[in-house]
Amino acid sequence: MPQDPNKPLSDIEIARQAKMQRIDAIAEKVGIPDDALEPYGKTIAKVDISAIPGLAERPDGKLILVTAINPTPAGEGKTTTTVGLGDGLNRIGKKAMICLREPSLGPCFGVKGGAAGGGYAQIVPMEQINLHFTGDFHAITSAHNLLSAMIDNHIYWGNSLGIDTRRVAWRRALDMNDRSLRQINSSLGGVSNGFPREDGFDITVASEVMAVFCLANDLADLEARLGRMIVGYTRDKKPVTAADIKAVSAMTVLLKDAIKPNLVQTLEGNPAFVHGGPFANIAHGCNSVSATKAGLKLADYVVTEAGFGADLGAEKFFDIKCRKAGLTPAAVVIVATVRALKMHGGVAKNELGKENIEALKKGLVNLGRHIENVRKFGVPAVVGINNFISDTSSEHEAIQSFCREQYGVEAVVCTHWAEGSKGTEALARQVVALAEEDHHLDGLGFRHLYPDAMPLWDKMKTIATEIYRASDIIADQKVRDQFRDIEAAGFGHLPICVAKTQYSFSTDPNLRGAPINHVVPIREVRLSAGAGFLVVVCGEIMTMPGLPKVPSAEIIRLDENGQIEGLF
Amino acid sequence: MPQDPNKPLSDIEIARQAKMQRIDAIAEKVGIPDDALEPYGKTIAKVDISAIPGLAERPDGKLILVTAINPTPAGEGKTTTTVGLGDGLNRIGKKAMICLREPSLGPCFGVKGGAAGGGYAQIVPMEQINLHFTGDFHAITSAHNLLSAMIDNHIYWGNSLGIDTRRVAWRRALDMNDRSLRQINSSLGGVSNGFPREDGFDITVASEVMAVFCLANDLADLEARLGRMIVGYTRDKKPVTAADIKAVSAMTVLLKDAIKPNLVQTLEGNPAFVHGGPFANIAHGCNSVSATKAGLKLADYVVTEAGFGADLGAEKFFDIKCRKAGLTPAAVVIVATVRALKMHGGVAKNELGKENIEALKKGLVNLGRHIENVRKFGVPAVVGINNFISDTSSEHEAIQSFCREQYGVEAVVCTHWAEGSKGTEALARQVVALAEEDHHLDGLGFRHLYPDAMPLWDKMKTIATEIYRASDIIADQKVRDQFRDIEAAGFGHLPICVAKTQYSFSTDPNLRGAPINHVVPIREVRLSAGAGFLVVVCGEIMTMPGLPKVPSAEIIRLDENGQIEGLF
Repeated sequence: MPQDPNKPLSDIEIARQAKMQRIDAIAEKVGIPDDALEPYGKTIAKVDISAIPGLAERPDGKLILVTAINPTPAGEGKTTTTVGLGDGLNRIGKKAMICLREPSLGPCFGVKGGAAGGGYAQIVPMEQINLHFTGDFHAITSAHNLLSAMIDNHIYWGNSLGIDTRRVAWRRALDMNDRSLRQINSSLGGVSNGFPREDGFDITVASEVMAVFCLANDLADLEARLGRMIVGYTRDKKPVTAADIKAVSAMTVLLKDAIKPNLVQTLEGNPAFVHGGPFANIAHGCNSVSATKAGLKLADYVVTEAGFGADLGAEKFFDIKCRKAGLTPAAVVIVATVRALKMHGGVAKNELGKENIEALKKGLVNLGRHIENVRKFGVPAVVGINNFISDTSSEHEAIQSFCREQYGVEAVVCTHWAEGSKGTEALARQVVALAEEDHHLDGLGFRHLYPDAMPLWDKMKTIATEIYRASDIIADQKVRDQFRDIEAAGFGHLPICVAKTQYSFSTDPNLRGAPINHVVPIREVRLSAGAGFLVVVCGEIMTMPGLPKVPSAEIIRLDENGQIEGLF
Repeated sequence: MPQDPNKPLSDIEIARQAKMQRIDAIAEKVGIPDDALEPYGKTIAKVDISAIPGLAERPDGKLILVTAINPTPAGEGKTTTTVGLGDGLNRIGKKAMICLREPSLGPCFGVKGGAAGGGYAQIVPMEQINLHFTGDFHAITSAHNLLSAMIDNHIYWGNSLGIDTRRVAWRRALDMNDRSLRQINSSLGGVSNGFPREDGFDITVASEVMAVFCLANDLADLEARLGRMIVGYTRDKKPVTAADIKAVSAMTVLLKDAIKPNLVQTLEGNPAFVHGGPFANIAHGCNSVSATKAGLKLADYVVTEAGFGADLGAEKFFDIKCRKAGLTPAAVVIVATVRALKMHGGVAKNELGKENIEALKKGLVNLGRHIENVRKFGVPAVVGINNFISDTSSEHEAIQSFCREQYGVEAVVCTHWAEGSKGTEALARQVVALAEEDHHLDGLGFRHLYPDAMPLWDKMKTIATEIYRASDIIADQKVRDQFRDIEAAGFGHLPICVAKTQYSFSTDPNLRGAPINHVVPIREVRLSAGAGFLVVVCGEIMTMPGLPKVPSAEIIRLDENGQIEGLF
């Protein structure tokens, strides 16, 4: 705990005070033998799941999803709560693991700080986790760009597949915020450099290789999925795949170590897998299936999270990740803060420090709808109120009454940021109570929002009306034709991955609260045939961020002790 | 040893048969304590030199350079001999370490095999070393591209430094063979993507960051050198540096772990540092100074190599690396093969299996000139004949007589490829005899070819006349003006880094043997102000390779045991 509550330590100061345990000691807590550990330094290890004897025969633990209300500039602390809940479950005697996404390197040099929790609910070593870590994203970047190079190389040496250079659908990737690479002309400079064409770079987390990596069950599944990725089209619009380019086996070789989950620890010395990190807009925004499945075999509880608010994050977690990987969530924690709910109720950011029950009650409609939505999947929910120092007990009580009276759901105040697991003990007990009842809300158990067999257009409409509460979806004829063509090409069974703003149930980021009767316009669709979903784009999607006027990179430095300043 | 000499095992088969020792056991052999080890798996570790107590006070060991005749398609086995000699020195009771460059990832997917020695003289684990290894090249790529992004970001947000977008001198980097990125137009697509300009990518090993990384003594020196790198010019041709862009501290943060040398082992369990790998044409082609210096403190002998033949490799090793780092080589091994010497004597590749004393004698002029050249630096030399199964003893004797009679130099037959250290015992004894005489050939000791104070043009002329035996150097007035401008800008003290063909002393790759009276035309000069040398380009220099029609990537795969096929 901070010595002086008026001068709390920063995340990085707290992380550096922590006495980390050796990673083999952390591994031992969940029965990972030394033979299965591939250390990266003394406090990080990759885990070779196949080297853990008898793992496949073990029963699965219980899977807990931490999701949130629609994010606001006030912050919710979803990752922090995920870490805090993992620590809290361990504190009350449950063997729990945490599964998180790996942070992307590029944005660290822009405006964003690290992504490893905060306060006394962090995973460590945070510097390594936020920078190169175990090189997984570098491996994914290499695999992505090997395919890119092989596509142009194929065209260069005769183009026997007949790829239309205007219809190359596979861009290049870098883990860097670099707006100047968003759109380029490549292969310039004459005959020996190839056939000039339009091209561009996405940030690595937006690569379909990343999504494939995170949904693959094992190396064989990874290779098969990579092979199905569509890299372009012939002049008569026939798809050309990565398998056609013969790039897939070499890409798999590049990813063979990356696919092993990375084991780290919380500040309290509990084990966490941090593995994979796909975008939450054009991809599903969850850590790797391999880490989650391994965690479920190793621990009694796995606490994980999904990107953005529950309208995007939880829906994709259920309908894409759980569907594809055959996972059954046992309970959901919806994270909310007094401050963010007040913003949903119309309070400006600089007024959030004042008690405002009226605005809070107005903003609770956002939380309420997420509770309703989660229950549509048949999973029990609890609300985690991530406490801020400016919160009042009246505000907490207002949230608790609302949840109990409207939905019969508990809302538990959590103080893990300031107190670590002591602050999530109550939440942990509530989660255990929900999960160990071992039946779902209505006795029907976990279900997806729509069946595989539903037409793609109807799937999208179901998400928009059931989750976003839109009155309808609309699209140009061209987009409607794409839905039809994609079904005709045999991809009608895929789930939908919606790319829209995270700030509202609607496609207008300024519509806070719980809007109804809005219409969801579909701009375009993108087929991720390897990952296995159809991306439906309902808004501006940026797949290559830029740097701000004064990027963090200008202040990030090593201090005189060789420690990093300015990253967090 | 191979069981059946008619069916020798492949390099990868031999490497896989090896029972590797744990890296802490290897470290212990040269007194590296466990506290200084940062393991990457069980057989690779980064070494934190600062965590080895009392290292700075220890005396330096002896530095042995392994170089070679001008390469031919017949092969010489320079890396293999470096590894073999390191094992041989350990076999005769000397505490020896090996220092090698890290292989580049990109070319592994083209035509090139691995770069970790061969036969029974290899470093392991070869798969990891040849692929991502400890991520050093990925870190260098990230640091390079962060600077690239910050340059365009600076221009985007107002360009207060007044960079002329036509004169941006800093390209982008990827560790991939990708000809389509050699020349691009970037920042296309409208206002929010920046100011369109011409740009391109180099392969990571060609990045000046790589050269800086390999010449830096420590992190502070690294940061200072990065800051001096010139990234472009203003409209009135004033240089803009990486320090001006404020990218340097963040780049250093990205490189802070990469700068630590990587420890691996030979098949015989002797320690080797494999660290850094700059191009041998537009850069100096040697492993990192940090690894070499650490090796000299840890071991009695450090065996290292330099890229290409001695005309480029040894000259740059002496005049750039040793000069900059204050190193004094104790002896040089010049590697030659009967086959390569016969090619220098005019024999076609498919005729090399037949004894041909006459052609061999004709080709010996190439070896002879390298011996003469090495002696100009005041360093004693020995020739290592890397034995091939088709060699005859008459051929070996012809080389030995030539070396002894013409130069008073021993030529030692080495069979390390087939026999490991047993095959380099004689070479090791000869190296020790030369190094421990502790005086150099003429009593003057090691010296550089030219002093810092010599004008740049004269330095280049000295290299061309003394080492290449050209009659003169020539250049357009524009290039001559550049020499003058660079001196006027305060860079006259820098050494020269020649970029020319590796296949001939001349700039014509077809001129084998020992041509004289040729003229060296200078095409262009490039100032590497951070690395601290002037690149003088005397031929076509490719800084971004392409892939062949059927790249290795098409056959590289994981076999049913999860082992890599096709990479070697």
